[in-house]
Amino acid sequence: MGENSGRIEFYFDFSSPYGYLGAQRIDELAASVGRDALWQPFLLGAVYKKTGAEPLVNVPLKKEYSAIDMPRSARKLGVPFVFPQDFPMATVPACRAFYWLEREDAEQARTLAKALYHAAFADGRNISAAESVLEVAGEQGFDTQAMEAALGDQEIKDLTREKVEQAIEKGVFGSPFLIVDGEPFWGHDRMEEAMEWARTGGW
Amino acid sequence: MGENSGRIEFYFDFSSPYGYLGAQRIDELAASVGRDALWQPFLLGAVYKKTGAEPLVNVPLKKEYSAIDMPRSARKLGVPFVFPQDFPMATVPACRAFYWLEREDAEQARTLAKALYHAAFADGRNISAAESVLEVAGEQGFDTQAMEAALGDQEIKDLTREKVEQAIEKGVFGSPFLIVDGEPFWGHDRMEEAMEWARTGGW
Repeated sequence: MGENSGRIEFYFDFSSPYGYLGAQRIDELAASVGRDALWQPFLLGAVYKKTGAEPLVNVPLKKEYSAIDMPRSARKLGVPFVFPQDFPMATVPACRAFYWLEREDAEQARTLAKALYHAAFADGRNISAAESVLEVAGEQGFDTQAMEAALGDQEIKDLTREKVEQAIEKGVFGSPFLIVDGEPFWGHDRMEEAMEWARTGGW
Repeated sequence: MGENSGRIEFYFDFSSPYGYLGAQRIDELAASVGRDALWQPFLLGAVYKKTGAEPLVNVPLKKEYSAIDMPRSARKLGVPFVFPQDFPMATVPACRAFYWLEREDAEQARTLAKALYHAAFADGRNISAAESVLEVAGEQGFDTQAMEAALGDQEIKDLTREKVEQAIEKGVFGSPFLIVDGEPFWGHDRMEEAMEWARTGGW
């Protein structure tokens, strides 16, 4: 395993429209440069506390722009997009469910992540509450009884907090955010560039 | 003149590193889709007052990221880049000088804009003060005596304020920012997409 065979770290928040768009293609992009993607949800809310930044939709002008750009970007990719009525959404339960599953099977965690994103941004469902996360998980055939217990488990809470802290320590502050061989790339519109970095070793 | 023959509006702030990068290639990009670029400096400071946003370099994490991303983006384009010691810079004098020149000759205004950007981000000079703007203008052979008078002229002050207000009314909030046939594109990393819009008529 050489230096360039590492996984591409894919950081995202479950309430992030651009994270949703990135999630539609990160696996394919990573595969195109012979890599696997490591999905790592985090909490933008924790970042905003640290940076004083605000969700796009709270910022005048940026809000109006993103209302144009988000659906336009989705049309370009040919993926469904609706802006959730309740926004931004709390994403702690979604994160915990993800990391609980991931401990056993990263593939299953990724399946849940895709389903949650689809529920939020293709179907417009509010995935804030633990009940909503369990509902989506149930539709995917996951063991929702075990998941419900896990969502209240201190160990899973700690694991999730740790994962979010690790992301912030690595400098992650937006969604999506990629790290390729230690090099950070912020934004859905930089994903191709990140792949070029993976392929070429940088410039 | 059809709907798609209009100029590509290129908004930028003279203190914006990504605006500098955009300025290195907007003319070539516009020409590649058969268009001309309309250079329109504005004042990010006026936008920040309205939106409550802050310069990149005041935001933790984003600051560290941009210190990596700015020179990396410049390397990719093969253009020189130094981060000015004094940052952010005041850009009111630069804006006024630009719009004074533009009234007579847009080509000359563009030449001054390029020289100011080069002074700031290739040579690391502080272009905040009227004296610095005049110095750069003098190096380009402009009539600095007439320019100095113009910088204090109420008519030029009003014209500049008006231009900045018009930009904000159009939704411009970042630098660079392109408007193509009424469609807004924010960011140096969206310039190719904006050209695709110009070429295809959108999606």
